[in-house]
Amino acid sequence: MLIIGEKINASIKSVGQAISDKNEEFLINLAQDQAEAGADLIDVNAGVGQDARESATTIIEWLIDLVQDVVEQPLCIDSDDPAVLKAALGRYRGETVMINSVDAEPDRLQSVGRLAAERQASLVALVMKEGGIPRTVDERLQAAEIIVEHLARVGVREDQIYFDPLVLPISVDTTQALVTLRTIEEIKSLYPSAKTVMGLSNISYGLPNRGIVNRSFMLMAASAGLDAAILNPLDKKLMSLVRVADMLTNKDPLCKGFIRAHRKGLLED
Amino acid sequence: MLIIGEKINASIKSVGQAISDKNEEFLINLAQDQAEAGADLIDVNAGVGQDARESATTIIEWLIDLVQDVVEQPLCIDSDDPAVLKAALGRYRGETVMINSVDAEPDRLQSVGRLAAERQASLVALVMKEGGIPRTVDERLQAAEIIVEHLARVGVREDQIYFDPLVLPISVDTTQALVTLRTIEEIKSLYPSAKTVMGLSNISYGLPNRGIVNRSFMLMAASAGLDAAILNPLDKKLMSLVRVADMLTNKDPLCKGFIRAHRKGLLED
Repeated sequence: MLIIGEKINASIKSVGQAISDKNEEFLINLAQDQAEAGADLIDVNAGVGQDARESATTIIEWLIDLVQDVVEQPLCIDSDDPAVLKAALGRYRGETVMINSVDAEPDRLQSVGRLAAERQASLVALVMKEGGIPRTVDERLQAAEIIVEHLARVGVREDQIYFDPLVLPISVDTTQALVTLRTIEEIKSLYPSAKTVMGLSNISYGLPNRGIVNRSFMLMAASAGLDAAILNPLDKKLMSLVRVADMLTNKDPLCKGFIRAHRKGLLED
Repeated sequence: MLIIGEKINASIKSVGQAISDKNEEFLINLAQDQAEAGADLIDVNAGVGQDARESATTIIEWLIDLVQDVVEQPLCIDSDDPAVLKAALGRYRGETVMINSVDAEPDRLQSVGRLAAERQASLVALVMKEGGIPRTVDERLQAAEIIVEHLARVGVREDQIYFDPLVLPISVDTTQALVTLRTIEEIKSLYPSAKTVMGLSNISYGLPNRGIVNRSFMLMAASAGLDAAILNPLDKKLMSLVRVADMLTNKDPLCKGFIRAHRKGLLED
């Protein structure tokens, strides 16, 4: 499974503070720690900024520079704002890059889709229209269809798309884990060259013992075909289970990665 | 998920010794502890006996009496020997009972199938012929077809059958977890009123950190539709994840079982 390190995100309080304070050491450590822990990409979300648009683009440019100077891993540039994404892509020197994210909203599919096409970037696409996360598999697949069609028009190939199947809290509706798992399977079947990606923690919203719920859901999603996850690579229990998931889904030839992780003492029971 | 407590099994050294020694206290505790820990059925395997056939039937009769007197849960009577199964069923007073097991071998399907039909018992059926566990999904489904046909002839209904999809160690062949998961899905699709059941520990044979591998595989199997598992209910981490699996597969309405387990301090992270 491709691991996208989620920690450099202004919505995490300590990280938002570090970005406001221009605390470079804190942010550099967070980037390097995630890379060392096994992140394949580093997500970078600078938040919406407290001031005007210009400020948000200035902040993301500073943050991209900071991170790209200290880690070799490609970045996943994370913003709702096409102008911020454009500024970040302009600054980023890496060849491989991921953009996070679009949904089935046509204007953003066009503007962000063009950025992805120009840069040959991977693009995270949430299978929802305006008005929130759909409750059914069919509605999510309808959104996926809109996404594929609009992106094709601006030159984004199916194999650049990472569909996010989306997940609603199980505490609100106990069918929702199965809805997400079926959505992954259907997307993999309908768009065989596209990939799937997901954040995990929404599943356990409102429940106690959230860690075991999130980790269990990751294993089920891996089994359904999930290709990538946006998660905290500093969570050793979760990363141990990512290694198990890779082994059980035949992505770890001869179990070498798992056995190496065991020898290095990385597996936490 | 239906939990079949696996601990009363003569192949476990301390248990085999307790059976030889007629150590009633040890075995009574093992039955009661499993029941309290959440086992829905208690597996009883008295081993092959050291002496003649008569001895094996005498031992199972003694063991069935011992266990049925102290737990309310139905028993899962576990033997390769039709004569032992017959003796045990003759002794057992419970209305609900499971027989463990047959495979696709016609003679046993007939003899053990008749016992299951007479007693309206559930019957564990391993999807293999003579010569070991097949490596492919198709060969396992061929065995399932033979099993269904032969059992129908002696009056065992499809809804009495618990198919064991079987699992080969991932350390020998990294495709084998997926083979087992696909077998579960196919059986559920081909025989919708039949159930599936599995032991977990074979998956991790030859690997370090077997616990996390077994638990991860349980979650994936639950997601594929596994109805029952033969496991150690005294393993708190595993039982915590069984509760999560039930919740995520929509078998725990309103998450009540999970939240109750949390309040009782039963969830181990």
